[in-house]
Amino acid sequence: MRVAIQGERGSFHDEAARQWYGEHIEIVECDSFPEVFAAVKSGAAEKAVAAMENSLYGSINQVYDLVEEYGYPIVGEVHLSVHQQLIAVPGHEITTIYSHPVALAQCETFLDEQYPFAGRVEVPDTAGAVRQISESREPGAAAIASAYAASLYDMPIIARDIENNPANFTRFLVLDPNGTVPEDADRATLVVTTKNDPGSLARVLLVFADMGINLSKLQSRPIVGRPWHYRFYLVVDCAGERLHRALEGIEPLTTEVKVLGEYVFNP
Amino acid sequence: MRVAIQGERGSFHDEAARQWYGEHIEIVECDSFPEVFAAVKSGAAEKAVAAMENSLYGSINQVYDLVEEYGYPIVGEVHLSVHQQLIAVPGHEITTIYSHPVALAQCETFLDEQYPFAGRVEVPDTAGAVRQISESREPGAAAIASAYAASLYDMPIIARDIENNPANFTRFLVLDPNGTVPEDADRATLVVTTKNDPGSLARVLLVFADMGINLSKLQSRPIVGRPWHYRFYLVVDCAGERLHRALEGIEPLTTEVKVLGEYVFNP
Repeated sequence: MRVAIQGERGSFHDEAARQWYGEHIEIVECDSFPEVFAAVKSGAAEKAVAAMENSLYGSINQVYDLVEEYGYPIVGEVHLSVHQQLIAVPGHEITTIYSHPVALAQCETFLDEQYPFAGRVEVPDTAGAVRQISESREPGAAAIASAYAASLYDMPIIARDIENNPANFTRFLVLDPNGTVPEDADRATLVVTTKNDPGSLARVLLVFADMGINLSKLQSRPIVGRPWHYRFYLVVDCAGERLHRALEGIEPLTTEVKVLGEYVFNP
Repeated sequence: MRVAIQGERGSFHDEAARQWYGEHIEIVECDSFPEVFAAVKSGAAEKAVAAMENSLYGSINQVYDLVEEYGYPIVGEVHLSVHQQLIAVPGHEITTIYSHPVALAQCETFLDEQYPFAGRVEVPDTAGAVRQISESREPGAAAIASAYAASLYDMPIIARDIENNPANFTRFLVLDPNGTVPEDADRATLVVTTKNDPGSLARVLLVFADMGINLSKLQSRPIVGRPWHYRFYLVVDCAGERLHRALEGIEPLTTEVKVLGEYVFNP
């Protein structure tokens, strides 16, 4: 099975894909999220795994836009604790640290304390940073990436779990153009556009609350082309018949409701 | 007046700062959002302007975290339409395009159509990309940045408004440690932690709706250290006495309410 990800082997996307589909998948490396979806469309990959939220930078709106554009159903969510490792070419003092900008930001406290004078260089991918220093053997070069990337390129970890916030995590969507709704689905991701009336969102949420349905995520999003008119992304802990009853309940309060996927949250 | 921003002169942060405080400010250039807040704390700057949402990547949670950590009140919001320009060293075919990763992503459609074979190089700042090519005069080098950055470095614009989505915008917060609530404040940013009960968020929103208070933004956020327990960031179109009445109304439904600022939205 070929799974398209942003980034390369050894990245957190790779880890998320393996966590969902197992070790024996073939990773299709892509430079950007639009390329990930295009790879599935062209048949270069059968499935896709794409980050949609991390605890430092929040939601990745672009991924939601692509899910809507391509219409591939969400078939699962992977939550990954993100632990960053300092990985270095042995035998030199560290003078330059390569990593993805988010990873550099996540480790800022540690870097400022331990390596205040080392240069920081932004590169597109954490795993790519490890590959690069493992190939170049540049004296003084280090990378910030996962333990998995260190082992993949057989490079030593100099300092472990150097992220500022140990509760760091990233949330990924699993997308499958041939996905169907499993019988035991218990979660759904929705895009809801409420009527332009101050009470309609509150009343939408009351419909879910009155049915005892928990919300796992709620985020307003400006409507493209109409800044500051909002749509809402909702992740609800229900699916199937119960979800459809709730959607009937909110119908009078909304102008559009799209179900982006119904799936099993903890399979 | 010295205003700290992430990035350098000519960046969109610079434009937002000038839009709020006028042309005669001194920009304090910082490498990261934590440095922006540290610059205000150290006295290197009196005010700060920090992006907190863009339409492609969504909210910048790190900025909200820093606002809470430092406790500097939000005194304003700036919304900037983001138009990207292709800026190049004249007289050569474009072979390498430098810009911030978000700007490169925003212009992906144009670049894929017009410059499919040009390399793309991520740099930390759009304005820095223009400065760099204006200094190096590297043949074939181009940058993606604002018209303001092009004029600042006196470099020609080769293609105008090349962003994929013309409704692109970025929303900035203005922070002032000595800020006070103006008499005509009409907007507030809040962090609300609701009681762990499925209906409490809906009932919080009903309190605002019943008072006729519009919500401009609503975003759930995992609680640090307790993934998937949510707090909510709310931007409400009210302030002062009316806000305080609303906060009394939601008190029984919440465990914590912080007001991050009350200010005039369209001064």
